[in-house]
Amino acid sequence: MSILIKNVSIVPLTENNKIIEKGYIIIENNMIKQIGEGSAPDDNYVEVIDGTNNIALPGFINTHTHAAMTLLRGYADDLPLMEWLETKIWPLEAKLTAEDIYWGTKLAIVEMIKSGTTTFTDMYFHMDKVAEAVKDSGIRAVLSRGMIGIGPESDTAIEQTRTLVKNWHNQANGRIKFALGPHAPYTCPPDYLKKITSLANELNVSINIHLAETKGEFEDIKKQYDKTPIALMEQIGLFNHHVIAAHCVHITEEDIDILKKYNVGVAHNPESNMKLASGIAPVSELLSKQIAVGLGTDGASSNNNLDMLEEMRSAALLHKVNTMNPTVIPAYQALEMATINGALVLGLDGEIGQLREGLKADIIMVEADKAHMIPRYDLIANLVYSAQGSDVNTVIIDGQVIMKDGNIVVFDEQEVLNKCKDVAERLMKEF
Amino acid sequence: MSILIKNVSIVPLTENNKIIEKGYIIIENNMIKQIGEGSAPDDNYVEVIDGTNNIALPGFINTHTHAAMTLLRGYADDLPLMEWLETKIWPLEAKLTAEDIYWGTKLAIVEMIKSGTTTFTDMYFHMDKVAEAVKDSGIRAVLSRGMIGIGPESDTAIEQTRTLVKNWHNQANGRIKFALGPHAPYTCPPDYLKKITSLANELNVSINIHLAETKGEFEDIKKQYDKTPIALMEQIGLFNHHVIAAHCVHITEEDIDILKKYNVGVAHNPESNMKLASGIAPVSELLSKQIAVGLGTDGASSNNNLDMLEEMRSAALLHKVNTMNPTVIPAYQALEMATINGALVLGLDGEIGQLREGLKADIIMVEADKAHMIPRYDLIANLVYSAQGSDVNTVIIDGQVIMKDGNIVVFDEQEVLNKCKDVAERLMKEF
Ligand SMILES: [Zn+2]
Ligand SMILES: [Zn+2]
Repeated sequence: MSILIKNVSIVPLTENNKIIEKGYIIIENNMIKQIGEGSAPDDNYVEVIDGTNNIALPGFINTHTHAAMTLLRGYADDLPLMEWLETKIWPLEAKLTAEDIYWGTKLAIVEMIKSGTTTFTDMYFHMDKVAEAVKDSGIRAVLSRGMIGIGPESDTAIEQTRTLVKNWHNQANGRIKFALGPHAPYTCPPDYLKKITSLANELNVSINIHLAETKGEFEDIKKQYDKTPIALMEQIGLFNHHVIAAHCVHITEEDIDILKKYNVGVAHNPESNMKLASGIAPVSELLSKQIAVGLGTDGASSNNNLDMLEEMRSAALLHKVNTMNPTVIPAYQALEMATINGALVLGLDGEIGQLREGLKADIIMVEADKAHMIPRYDLIANLVYSAQGSDVNTVIIDGQVIMKDGNIVVFDEQEVLNKCKDVAERLMKEF
Repeated sequence: MSILIKNVSIVPLTENNKIIEKGYIIIENNMIKQIGEGSAPDDNYVEVIDGTNNIALPGFINTHTHAAMTLLRGYADDLPLMEWLETKIWPLEAKLTAEDIYWGTKLAIVEMIKSGTTTFTDMYFHMDKVAEAVKDSGIRAVLSRGMIGIGPESDTAIEQTRTLVKNWHNQANGRIKFALGPHAPYTCPPDYLKKITSLANELNVSINIHLAETKGEFEDIKKQYDKTPIALMEQIGLFNHHVIAAHCVHITEEDIDILKKYNVGVAHNPESNMKLASGIAPVSELLSKQIAVGLGTDGASSNNNLDMLEEMRSAALLHKVNTMNPTVIPAYQALEMATINGALVLGLDGEIGQLREGLKADIIMVEADKAHMIPRYDLIANLVYSAQGSDVNTVIIDGQVIMKDGNIVVFDEQEVLNKCKDVAERLMKEF
């Protein structure tokens, strides 16, 4: 009952950074059973995939997004942040039904699979529908219900999260993990975050939160609590649990030490931070201190796509010009951010993020015989600086072939596109 | 003898910024004959292209590249600039034969066509071979032989340029234009640039030059001539001719006034400037002063692809975060930079860069029925922030269908890929 990928170049992202120019991968059930150079041992494989002219690597790990925001893609761009949120995004989000969220998430999943993402991290609402979409599509995800600590919904959010964790955490053959999703320090007061901390303790799950995204947030928190957002989280005790901290754009030297001390995972979203003009996170400094920094696309309304190859390239380019140093974030480090670092950020290292025996079989294949991938002096540079999402032609998640020759084979892609067009049309009519 | 594109959404990039949701384009010979809404008049079209679910727009205009540097793609990345040039790029370039340049240019052309570029601006050597590649492939180009004003080659460069202009300017049905290509102020002393200026006058062609790319250049020129690179060019009289100025990263307020005064066209290369850590050009300021700023990819060794959709997105994102203003370079302005502004920069407005009657038929079609292009609230935002090069499925240049359904139909694409793999293999053996 095993699958063989043969004649493939392999970039395993393991510690020794060794590339196998031509080799094979054997998948058994949902695991990588064997990786080797040259030809594979004979066996009765249920499926043989020819990887000639292809590069196999671990699937990309999107450490921060709001999947169903695909339904808002391009709805309102190029506006000042608060005007964008208050007059456009929030009113439209208020119209979204549970069913909409299912299809919007599915649309995000189609897009992510097509560009090589095998795991994503989500924070949104109607998360039971998001979990269903994850279950149905074969992708892997860390899900969290966005929790606002002000107003009447704040306690409901905790109760719903408890139920979600009970119903979904570790479901779908372990493809679904749940985390707690306090939205941000400016929407969740310290007392609420303390409750979240206790809940994380009780349920033994990670915490997914936006931290230090904008200068405004940094200044407001500082004014209100006389502490930076990061220092405030330390004081509250949030970092005593595993935390996925999205953004970390506006942070001090002391904040960096705190992130390091508590092994906080940072989800860096270069394109969202650029598009919303939030600022530039000090990523090369974080990386130089061995802090786990993964990559995220953020939601489609602030990006506007969910393409991790693009995010990887933007990260590599942005920090070079920002530090005026062309050696900062070399290609391989950007690739690590999109794979193994992402696994570290999510606390899923040892399970995904690399190609090695004993890990989950989350594998993508990228076609290398295209004009923009030639010559082949440096596979890694080609992947990071030249490749585009559509070069991904095969996606395997948890040992299941999800996409082959660029076509999703486990669910009807066109149905998803059509449903989402209908939703968008209805939303526009309601306005 | 005309071609019809029907049922297509049209983004014409004309002054009124009107989008035709469903319309048609009639091409006669190499020109756009008619554009309209709804159904086209009946006629004996030699070819009918169904544009359902597609967006038609003017082909992208790459205002700065070194096409045959595709042969150096990924050969040496993430190094300090001078080490990169001196120990890697220049020694490898010295090995390139005229034949290599032909195939390297052809590889660039394949890549550019596949991602929707219909005109490119080149500066390199063995330019007769580059012109042949342009002629054979059907693309449009402004070509210049790179001229270094120091050493024994400086006069040869002028004589060769004279011959090139005589043999190639306005050839291939006008698809080929030649320009003079003095490399940069730091490689071309004032006396040499004065010769170039006279030659431009004599031959009545444009001048293509790198200006103010790095801080080092700015400081060296300032030290040597007590003028900024831009002010030095004004003094020399270079700007009395039509100039395509690549980069313009390190410029002062006075420099911007000079660029405006002489109608200098600026080729902005955001990804090259990011990757080489050259700096960030003050593009939003240039645009606010109505200076023509187009987009360029620069050579594949500093990018590493020639994808104008990506360049457009990088420009839109980079300047938002750099100015901390999310309203800077909105999507439509980025699209203008990649099309009509590019035509202005090259002095080819009124010929290319828009879809309107009487212009050359340089038209691309982008598929919109893909996950990352749904919903369709805003075609322009989808094109700029979401699309990828491979979404371009049809390319028409000078009235000729060059690519259809993603396949190049006028020459053998695989031959180009194979030839370039062979060249790269030989180059590696020679080292
Ligand atoms: Zn977010
Ligand atoms: Zn250049």
